[in-house]
Amino acid sequence: MTRELTVALVGATGVVGEQFLQIMEARALPVRELRLLATARSAGRAIPFRGETLTVAETTAEALAGADVVFVSASTEASRHWCPIARDLGAVAFDDSSAFRMEPDVPLVVPEVNGETLRSHRGIIATPNCSTVPVVLTLAPLMRERAVRRVIADTYQSVSGSGGAAVVELREQTAARLADRPHEPEVYPKQIAFNTIPQVDLFLEDGYTKEEWKMIAESRKILGQADLAISATCVRVPTFVAHAAAVHVELDAPLTAAAARVLWSGQDGLAVVDDPVNAGYPTPVDSAHRDPVFVGRVRQDASHPNGLAYWVVSDNLRKGAALNIVQMVEWMLADGCL
Amino acid sequence: MTRELTVALVGATGVVGEQFLQIMEARALPVRELRLLATARSAGRAIPFRGETLTVAETTAEALAGADVVFVSASTEASRHWCPIARDLGAVAFDDSSAFRMEPDVPLVVPEVNGETLRSHRGIIATPNCSTVPVVLTLAPLMRERAVRRVIADTYQSVSGSGGAAVVELREQTAARLADRPHEPEVYPKQIAFNTIPQVDLFLEDGYTKEEWKMIAESRKILGQADLAISATCVRVPTFVAHAAAVHVELDAPLTAAAARVLWSGQDGLAVVDDPVNAGYPTPVDSAHRDPVFVGRVRQDASHPNGLAYWVVSDNLRKGAALNIVQMVEWMLADGCL
Repeated sequence: MTRELTVALVGATGVVGEQFLQIMEARALPVRELRLLATARSAGRAIPFRGETLTVAETTAEALAGADVVFVSASTEASRHWCPIARDLGAVAFDDSSAFRMEPDVPLVVPEVNGETLRSHRGIIATPNCSTVPVVLTLAPLMRERAVRRVIADTYQSVSGSGGAAVVELREQTAARLADRPHEPEVYPKQIAFNTIPQVDLFLEDGYTKEEWKMIAESRKILGQADLAISATCVRVPTFVAHAAAVHVELDAPLTAAAARVLWSGQDGLAVVDDPVNAGYPTPVDSAHRDPVFVGRVRQDASHPNGLAYWVVSDNLRKGAALNIVQMVEWMLADGCL
Repeated sequence: MTRELTVALVGATGVVGEQFLQIMEARALPVRELRLLATARSAGRAIPFRGETLTVAETTAEALAGADVVFVSASTEASRHWCPIARDLGAVAFDDSSAFRMEPDVPLVVPEVNGETLRSHRGIIATPNCSTVPVVLTLAPLMRERAVRRVIADTYQSVSGSGGAAVVELREQTAARLADRPHEPEVYPKQIAFNTIPQVDLFLEDGYTKEEWKMIAESRKILGQADLAISATCVRVPTFVAHAAAVHVELDAPLTAAAARVLWSGQDGLAVVDDPVNAGYPTPVDSAHRDPVFVGRVRQDASHPNGLAYWVVSDNLRKGAALNIVQMVEWMLADGCL
């Protein structure tokens, strides 16, 4: 008999929280009790789940007590505060923020890539940044055939990665600009409507953004290659859901595009969409609200004999966050380590 | 005394045609007579120029006869047809299409980079593709200090690169999607509103698009380095004007970001905007309707000790087309080769 879980969801009213509810219901996660938690401001809101109506409560230690698993997707500050409390109360905390990802005793997991690291958790488990997941999921099968020498990933990231206020800003600012009305940016440092902003998250001393360093550091940790040469430019574009990236990989020996497609076709979690002359390539609009990471436009990279170039898209709220976490729980239940 | 020119503009009613008119007027190009030409459908339209009202006529050999210079910015087919006719009638044809760019006897020119090749023209001169110009203009000054070993450029290209119908499609489709109404794509193979499409121009056998091969082949020709290792993924994004690119350059020895900024600051046609913590980086909205190619976000590329990563934006209708051609004429007039 499957173990039934008491689940607490911190950040239940956010854009990722909404996905957690849909995904737990659709995948029939064995949830005995679900506690929807958020800030005091959102407490009292009614949210449907499996035909019942649940009421959002304020996140408190009392509300976390007795939970088997706690999903935290609010702010990095909320994660820093609540994950250790959840852990100390005996739960396993699954965190969607960058707060704990690089801690040595915190597994950073894409279940299809490094699920086995879930076994060594010590109460806090992190899901990677939404733009990192598709890149590592496409690199992992290539690494079973070839050593990866260098990776460059330039991203096209949707506004939902910045939360609900950014979704509203894109929608309202777009309507304003279409009507030739001004609309001051609030969430973003510049206008996002009909624009591209080469900044995701804050800047570091070396000129990279935190988002770019997440791609670099998290990929190294998940793929278990601490010296992986990898670079990224992360760019916000005016799309609502799903992040895309143009990826260029240098291997230790040539690999044909056809061979890459075969490797990817055998990879759980990945869907190859690669019939370009018939517009067979993934885009954010096609890939939003869907589970797989979609990869296409694979070709030998014209700049290197051992290079591959490709294009990858995935729903940043699902595989980039809520789905990946639910899949971790499923993996652990099947494995018996939860 | 400056030579005064009889100018014919083929494609006068298109998005680039409009820019030609503005730029010739603003820069006081010595135009004695201007003939506005287009297809029969647009003939008769009245367009203001320098306080006069000019009437668009249909493009014919008669209308080109006696012109000193002919600007052609319509379709590739129109270029193939009219450029040789203009040349045979004694004019110098400046072409905005890809029809002649790779012909050995056709100069392919960014005046600040390889203006001297204008002297060897044989009646047809080509301007590079709009996404190529900013890349070569940033590479040229680096190449004066270092050998360039490899270049990767992933683009974020505006819809005006596809012409006026694409601008209308983005505007109307965006309004429709905001109202949750469907809107079938016509210009593009997929929805462009709130989406990114990894296809610009048609596909070739090897999985690259023509646009990507233009970047590769044209950069090699303009920079005079036939074996330059260069790759690109060209992506259409929902912006109206100005193309952006994330560029990763591998040099033969390290070059600091500060040194790159100094080299770029000394480059005509280039403006460095690089104060990222204060949102000092170029975006399409900031860069549209302006002359320079804007470069920012320069940093050492984390994936290679001799690498630089940066971000470049320029108005695809101006420096990517009309402005670059007008600058060629200015260069030739100053040089005496026109």
